Amino acid sequence: MHYRTHNCGELRMQHVGQEIKLSGWVQISRDFGGMTFIDLRDRYGITQLVFNMEDDAALCERARKLGREFVISATGLVRERSNKNPNRPTGGIEIQVTALDVLNTSKVPPFTIEDDTDGGDDLRMKYRYLDIRRNPVKQSLIFRSNVAIETRKYLAGEGFIEVETPCLIKSTPEGARDFVVPSRMNPGQFYALPQSPQTFKQILMVAGMDKYFQLVKCFRDEDLRADRQPEFTQIDCEMAFVSRDDVLRTFEGLTKYLFKTILGLEFSDFPRMRYDEAMCRFGSDKPDTRFGMEFVELNDVAKGKGFGIFDNAELIVGICAAGQAEVYSNNDLKTLAEWLQRPQIGAKGLVHVKVNEDGSFKSSVSKFYSDEDLKAWAEKFNAKPGDLLLILSGEAEKTRKQLNELRLEMGRRMGLMKPGDFKPLWVVEFPLLEWDEDAKRFFAMHHPFTSPLPQDAEKMMSGDHETLKNLRANAYDLVINGVEIGGGSIRIHERALQEKNFNLLGFTPEEAERQFGFLLGAFEYGAPPHGGIAFGFDRLCAVMSGQTSIRDFIAFPKNNMGRDMMIDAPSEISDEQLKELYLAVTADRKV
Amino acid sequence: MHYRTHNCGELRMQHVGQEIKLSGWVQISRDFGGMTFIDLRDRYGITQLVFNMEDDAALCERARKLGREFVISATGLVRERSNKNPNRPTGGIEIQVTALDVLNTSKVPPFTIEDDTDGGDDLRMKYRYLDIRRNPVKQSLIFRSNVAIETRKYLAGEGFIEVETPCLIKSTPEGARDFVVPSRMNPGQFYALPQSPQTFKQILMVAGMDKYFQLVKCFRDEDLRADRQPEFTQIDCEMAFVSRDDVLRTFEGLTKYLFKTILGLEFSDFPRMRYDEAMCRFGSDKPDTRFGMEFVELNDVAKGKGFGIFDNAELIVGICAAGQAEVYSNNDLKTLAEWLQRPQIGAKGLVHVKVNEDGSFKSSVSKFYSDEDLKAWAEKFNAKPGDLLLILSGEAEKTRKQLNELRLEMGRRMGLMKPGDFKPLWVVEFPLLEWDEDAKRFFAMHHPFTSPLPQDAEKMMSGDHETLKNLRANAYDLVINGVEIGGGSIRIHERALQEKNFNLLGFTPEEAERQFGFLLGAFEYGAPPHGGIAFGFDRLCAVMSGQTSIRDFIAFPKNNMGRDMMIDAPSEISDEQLKELYLAVTADRKV
Repeated sequence: MHYRTHNCGELRMQHVGQEIKLSGWVQISRDFGGMTFIDLRDRYGITQLVFNMEDDAALCERARKLGREFVISATGLVRERSNKNPNRPTGGIEIQVTALDVLNTSKVPPFTIEDDTDGGDDLRMKYRYLDIRRNPVKQSLIFRSNVAIETRKYLAGEGFIEVETPCLIKSTPEGARDFVVPSRMNPGQFYALPQSPQTFKQILMVAGMDKYFQLVKCFRDEDLRADRQPEFTQIDCEMAFVSRDDVLRTFEGLTKYLFKTILGLEFSDFPRMRYDEAMCRFGSDKPDTRFGMEFVELNDVAKGKGFGIFDNAELIVGICAAGQAEVYSNNDLKTLAEWLQRPQIGAKGLVHVKVNEDGSFKSSVSKFYSDEDLKAWAEKFNAKPGDLLLILSGEAEKTRKQLNELRLEMGRRMGLMKPGDFKPLWVVEFPLLEWDEDAKRFFAMHHPFTSPLPQDAEKMMSGDHETLKNLRANAYDLVINGVEIGGGSIRIHERALQEKNFNLLGFTPEEAERQFGFLLGAFEYGAPPHGGIAFGFDRLCAVMSGQTSIRDFIAFPKNNMGRDMMIDAPSEISDEQLKELYLAVTADRKV
Repeated sequence: MHYRTHNCGELRMQHVGQEIKLSGWVQISRDFGGMTFIDLRDRYGITQLVFNMEDDAALCERARKLGREFVISATGLVRERSNKNPNRPTGGIEIQVTALDVLNTSKVPPFTIEDDTDGGDDLRMKYRYLDIRRNPVKQSLIFRSNVAIETRKYLAGEGFIEVETPCLIKSTPEGARDFVVPSRMNPGQFYALPQSPQTFKQILMVAGMDKYFQLVKCFRDEDLRADRQPEFTQIDCEMAFVSRDDVLRTFEGLTKYLFKTILGLEFSDFPRMRYDEAMCRFGSDKPDTRFGMEFVELNDVAKGKGFGIFDNAELIVGICAAGQAEVYSNNDLKTLAEWLQRPQIGAKGLVHVKVNEDGSFKSSVSKFYSDEDLKAWAEKFNAKPGDLLLILSGEAEKTRKQLNELRLEMGRRMGLMKPGDFKPLWVVEFPLLEWDEDAKRFFAMHHPFTSPLPQDAEKMMSGDHETLKNLRANAYDLVINGVEIGGGSIRIHERALQEKNFNLLGFTPEEAERQFGFLLGAFEYGAPPHGGIAFGFDRLCAVMSGQTSIRDFIAFPKNNMGRDMMIDAPSEISDEQLKELYLAVTADRKV
C-alpha cells in the first residue's frame, strides 16, 4: 500500500496537471451546490480537495459522508484554483479527486482542532493526541525538536561529548525530594531518579572527558506549583580546566547561536551583574531588563521629617512609573496598594507621589513632606511631569522583594514587556551559603559542590557567622526577560575544601561519606579544576517562543497532582508486584 | 586563571618556537641523567614535557616529585624533538617547560591507566572515573556520542521530529517486569518507568506528528544475564501512512549512513529473509551471515536404513565444516559432542562423517550406512574431500536451535566471523503469536500492537488453534553479524482489530480497557496507519565497533545484581522517606 506521493503542505502551481495522492485528516467539509470541498490536513499543511457531482456522483456522495478527523487517502489531479487563498502556501491549487480511501473513521472530537480551541485544560490533557493536532501545540513540539538539534550541533562543534548518565542512582536527602525506585534484586533498597546528573558530570571531569554535555531528563518530587513538572529536561554541561569566563563565553555563544539560527536574532555581548547589584537595582536575582524602572533609594531624603513609617524603616525605596500620574486615580492607587498587601506579597503600605504638569506634587504623604522635599525625591528618580512615584518601606530585603513584584506588575500594565524583545543577562557572584533561621543551619544557595570565589576560599575556614554569610560563590545564572534560563558554577575539586563545605552545611563526616563518598574518593585521584552549567530546556523553549508556560513544549505533561490524565498514571500495582519488591502499602488503597 | 592555550593532542612542528600552556594528567615520568621527561595526557592526546637540571634545577626537582595521575599545568616553549616518536601525532615536538603548577595530586591508582589494564571488572567499575581515562573506554564513549549525533542528523534530515515521551508512566503486567516509582501525592499508587515508549509513539502518530524519533532511555527489571542492563537506550521511531517497505527503506538508509559516515563502509541493499526461511537455513531468527555453513536436511536420504535414532527423528539436519576432517580427532569430536550435550544446548548426540581424500568416508554411523549412502549425504552438502559433516537429529525446532549453536561455534573456531566484516540482514514475516504450553495461552512474539500481514488479518477471527499459530506478523528485525540490532512492525490502528488481538492474548475486555484504554480510545479519533522500529543503541555501537559487550559503551553500567559499584546504589532510604510514600519494607533491612 502506497499512501501518498506528496504531503498536504507541498503542492504548488508547478504541480498543476500532475496526478498525486495525499493522505491526512478531514479538517472541514463544505458543500456548494454540486461541489464538495474538503480541507485535508497533515503535519505539513492543508490542501483543498474537490469532488463534483457532475464528474462522479457516487464518489461525491462518499465524500459528503466524511466526518471531521476522518483519515483518508485521495488520488487526483492538481489544478489551479479559480478562487485562490493567499493565506495558505497551497492556496493556489486544489485536487480534483478521482479516488478516495477511508483509512479510518473518527468520532466527533470533544473539542475543535483549531488554533483557538474550545477545550479546557483537563479535556486537552485527556485527549492530548487531539490537542497535539492543533497548530500551536504541534509547532511548539517541532520548535523544541529544532532547538534540541541546534543545541547539539553547537556543542558538538565546540568539542563537547554527549554522555548518558544513569537514571537509576542513589537517593540523597540534600536538596529537593527524590523519586525512588524499589530494587527487586536488593530487597529493602531503592534507587533514586536523578534531580540532575551533577555528581556524574563532575565524575566525568575527573575521568578526563574534558567537555561533557547531555540533554537529560531530571526528576523532582515537589509539590507542583504552576508550571513545574515532576520530570523536566536540562541542557547539562561540564568543562574541565576552565574558570568562570570560559563557561560564560561558551554558553553565551550557545545562546546567541540558538537565537540566531532559530529566530534570526543577533545579540551583542550579554551584560553581567553582581547578585547584590541586581538585588539593589531590581529587588530580584532574575531581573527583567527589557525595561528600566530601576529602584531608587530615598533614605537620605525621606527620613527625619516626622513620617514615622519612613523614619523607622530600614529601607525606603521606590520606582518611577513614567507618564502614569494621570492614569491612576486615587481609587486605582488604593486597589494597587491592596494588591500589594495580599499575603502573597505582604507589603505594609504604598506611598505615591504624582509629578504634576506644573511642577507641583500630589502625594499621599503631603502632610509630612513639602513640595521642596518631594522635588528632591523626584530629582533622585529623574522624574518628569506626568510621572508617578511608587514607594515602599520596611525591612530592606523584604521591601526589595515587594517592590520587585510592583515593578513587574507596572511593567506588565504599561506594556513594557514587549514580545519579540529579548534581554539576556548574566547574574554572577551569588552568596555561597544561605542561613535558614528555622533550621538554624546554612543551606547551599546553588548546591554543595559550588566553589567560593577564589578570593573567598580562605574565609570558608572562618568560624564567624557574618563572614560565612557574606561568602560569595563562583556561581552564575543566565536570565532572559526575568526568567532564569539556567545556572552553574565553578566546582570544588579538592577533597579538603569539599569536606569543609559539607561541614558548613551540617553534614557529619559519616553522612558526607555515605552520600558522597564516591565523589570525595574521586577527588583523591587527580580531579582537575572544573565547572559547568545547566539550562532548563523546557523553559528555554518557552522563553524563546515568547510563551509564559512550559506546558505545550512538553508532549505529555502532568497535572498539578502529578497525574498523566491521558494514560491515567500513577495507578495501583498488583499485590504480586508489591510482594516481589518486598513492599507493603500503608495507605488505604482504593478498590 | 587560564589553564591552557592548547590541548595535549594538537601541537605539531608548525608550533615550534611558540610559548604555550598545557594542562592534563601525568601519564608517566622518566629521568635520564639531568633530564626529566613527562608524558602529559588529556582527552585529546599526549604531549612530552621536558625539564632540564641545567636550565632550572628547582623546577626539575619539582617535576621529579610528580606522581602518576597528578593534574598539572605547564607553560613552556614548543621545540622539535631530536628523537621523534612517529606513533604519536604530537611525536615530532616536545615542550621545554618554564613554569609548572600542580593543580591536584593523586593517590596511586588501583590499576594502570593503559589500554591493557591490570584492573579486574569489579575494580574498574568501582573506580570508573579512572577506567574512563583509559583509551578504549574513552574512545567507546566518544564513538557512542558520534553515532548519536549522526543518527539525529540523518533522521532530522528525513523530516523526523524528536519528541520526548514521559519517564513516569503506567505499569502494565504484559511483557517484562516494570520498575515502579511510588507516588507521594497519590498514596498507594505507582508510576512505572517505560520499557519502551511504544504506546506514546503510537499516540504521537494519532496526534499527527507523522515522523517521530527519540534516543530514549528504557528500563527493564529483569534478572540480568550477561550483557543486559536494567537501563538501556533505544533509537526509537514511528511513521504514519507507511507500509513495511517505507520503514525498511528509511532505516536501511540510516544504517548505511552510519556505517558510511562513522566507519567509511558502503553497503549494497540489505538482503531480506523470511523468519521461517531463516529458521530452516540457520536455525536462528538472527543468523550470522558472514559465513555460510547452511543447514542441510537429510530426512529423505538418512531414514529407513535401520539407524533407530534417525528413523525416529522428526528432523535430521547437519552442516558441512569445510576442510575440518583432518583437524578433528575422534577425541575432539567426542569433546564437541559433550559440549553439545550440556544442558544449555541439550543435544542428544552428534553424528559425524569425514570425507576422506580418496572419496571414501569415515563416520560414526558406518554400521548403518554404506559409503554409497554417505555419498548421497555428501552430495547434498556439496562436500569436498577433507570436509567434516556434523549432523544432529530429533524434534525439528529444538534440533535446529542446537545446530545453530554448533554452526556458530564452528564459525568461531574456523575464524569465519571476521572483524571488520559486516553482514546486515532484514528478517521479516515473524509469527504473530507464540503458544506458551505452560501458561496455555498465546503471547505476542513482538508485542500486542503488532499487526498481522494484511493477507492474514482475516484469519485472526478464526477460532482454530493451528490457523492462529501460523499467523504472520507484519514485523521485521535488522540483524548484523548475528546480533539483533532492532526490530519493529506495522501496528494495528483500528480499535476492533486491537481488541481482537488483546482477546487472543488472553486479556479480558476490562483488563484491556484498564491498561490500554487510552490507546483504544485514541484509535476511535482518526488513527492513521502507522509503523515503526527501534534499534538497541548500546548494541548498535558495540556491533559497529566490533565489540561483543555493551559495557564500555555505557558510561556507568550496573553489575549483574543491578548495582552501581561506584556510587553504591541502590541503597536504603530513610524511614521518613518511606512514610511519606505510604510504604513499608517487608524484607529484613540491614542495619
